[in-house]
Amino acid sequence: MATIKAGIVGYGNLGKSVEAVIKQTSDIELVGVFSRRDSLDTDAPVIPVADVAEYADKIDVLYLCLGSATDIPEQAPEFAKYACTVDTYDNHRDVARHYSAMQDVAEKAGNVAVVSTGWDPGMFSLNRVYAAAVLPGAQQNTFWGPGLSQGHSDALRRIEGVASAVQYTLPAEEALDKARRGEAEGITGKNAHKRQCFVVPESDDAALKERIENDIRTMPDYFVGYEVEVNFISQEEFDKNHTGMPHGGHVITTGELGATRTHHTVEYTLELDRNPDFTAAVQVAYGRAAHRLKESGQTGAFTVLEIAPYLLSEKSLEDMLREDV
Amino acid sequence: MATIKAGIVGYGNLGKSVEAVIKQTSDIELVGVFSRRDSLDTDAPVIPVADVAEYADKIDVLYLCLGSATDIPEQAPEFAKYACTVDTYDNHRDVARHYSAMQDVAEKAGNVAVVSTGWDPGMFSLNRVYAAAVLPGAQQNTFWGPGLSQGHSDALRRIEGVASAVQYTLPAEEALDKARRGEAEGITGKNAHKRQCFVVPESDDAALKERIENDIRTMPDYFVGYEVEVNFISQEEFDKNHTGMPHGGHVITTGELGATRTHHTVEYTLELDRNPDFTAAVQVAYGRAAHRLKESGQTGAFTVLEIAPYLLSEKSLEDMLREDV
Repeated sequence: MATIKAGIVGYGNLGKSVEAVIKQTSDIELVGVFSRRDSLDTDAPVIPVADVAEYADKIDVLYLCLGSATDIPEQAPEFAKYACTVDTYDNHRDVARHYSAMQDVAEKAGNVAVVSTGWDPGMFSLNRVYAAAVLPGAQQNTFWGPGLSQGHSDALRRIEGVASAVQYTLPAEEALDKARRGEAEGITGKNAHKRQCFVVPESDDAALKERIENDIRTMPDYFVGYEVEVNFISQEEFDKNHTGMPHGGHVITTGELGATRTHHTVEYTLELDRNPDFTAAVQVAYGRAAHRLKESGQTGAFTVLEIAPYLLSEKSLEDMLREDV
Repeated sequence: MATIKAGIVGYGNLGKSVEAVIKQTSDIELVGVFSRRDSLDTDAPVIPVADVAEYADKIDVLYLCLGSATDIPEQAPEFAKYACTVDTYDNHRDVARHYSAMQDVAEKAGNVAVVSTGWDPGMFSLNRVYAAAVLPGAQQNTFWGPGLSQGHSDALRRIEGVASAVQYTLPAEEALDKARRGEAEGITGKNAHKRQCFVVPESDDAALKERIENDIRTMPDYFVGYEVEVNFISQEEFDKNHTGMPHGGHVITTGELGATRTHHTVEYTLELDRNPDFTAAVQVAYGRAAHRLKESGQTGAFTVLEIAPYLLSEKSLEDMLREDV
């Protein structure tokens, strides 16, 4: 199989992880990193993002490593004109709109745009759909953490007056046990978790801090409706205690089946030492799928739900049938 | 969406569970149970299996609830001539051959044959492929139980001179922990598990028991290479202690990712009160997928690896994009 030629757009934590994960594959080759900056700390070619159109024939897949808050909605459709794209758009309530925007552009351009990969959305979405599809009347709960939420930290950092910020999400242990027993009725993502924010303000001004806290608590989708804890800390404390990026979580689904309504529990668990590395690993694998879908004549937008599992693997289907089924 | 018209072939534990699970769905309707027997303990129509050809126009999906040891290899291709089929063929090392046999017949007949659904193969296969695809150089282990293995019990019961039999598979706890730490090198399915057989012989004759035990220990794929414990017990003891059907297990995958080789663990766990009910639930969901694939113009054999997740669900893709991604 020919090597898949890849580009990375954006070179934050996720872009750097994608670069490193691509080095761990044998079938994907990095052509370059597209950036608005002239130089980056990478040994890969750095290409002005404005030149992306010139690379349409040299790149099979563009990994869009851009923030979900504003960059993906504003910029992703443009990139789908030039190559297949894979993004990690993580605003769950807006996925359908983003999907539709990418569909129009990718179909017209004859490309495949895979949207909202990563682990949630992504691997967790897959597990929600599989488990609920096989268990009629399933009870299903998703729990996050303990760990750092990249999307929510990103949202905090975009608030004016914030110098540094992280957001940790913590699941309630008793909620996990209730979910496994199938007694989680009434438990929602919102009441089973706490959103803990550590924020370094640009100054110690009380009015500034009050406005930042208000901006956090009133941010729709991200914070409204959750138990939110806002802690203002110094840059020193931030650098010392809040630069790791562990994460993980559980998708727990239960259902009562058959004539005697027997109890069945499906649990999918992730324990991730470094969130952007795993997000990148999922994104990289879906680049393989995007390329193969296009090669087989498909175009348009795809979520992970519409992509057959074997398309993600470096292995041939024949090897999988022999070794993995 | 029109109701999917289903038939069940075979009415053992699995067939009965499929019947009960179909009742829990709102989009699948049971036309009848195909059987060689005249009457069955069911309120569904019982149809002679020899008449299946006459039902080709009245049935969308045939759920093949037949044993893997001989029935599926011998009979499944015949059924694929008349309708889409879904089976739970569980002889892992023979899946590729079975797939190929079903491919020929189903393609010629314009039907879709989904092979080897259930949970292992089935949901476990999916999780093995997804986790290994996203973690380059993954270390992966599958653990079964504690629980009853239907396929292996079936194999025991087919040995001449066996009146009743069950086989339990037990995972080693320390093997689970090693796998989560990524230190499971050298651990195989075979040395992390014990296969425990409880067999009721047709008579108490010593030579009979010796021959049965030898037949078990030398059965390829099923028992050769495993630590096997064979216990001969009375029918009374069997009826009292060995008629439940719990099962479950874990697929544990770890990988080291990115520039600093951070550790990542993916674990998929099933805890099933009644194995045939869950196997049936997965099989029923893949019937939905088989029908939809055929409706979209596809034909031939499919494993779970080749089927996009959204095709399994009663929900529309639009609802999933809004609620599950």
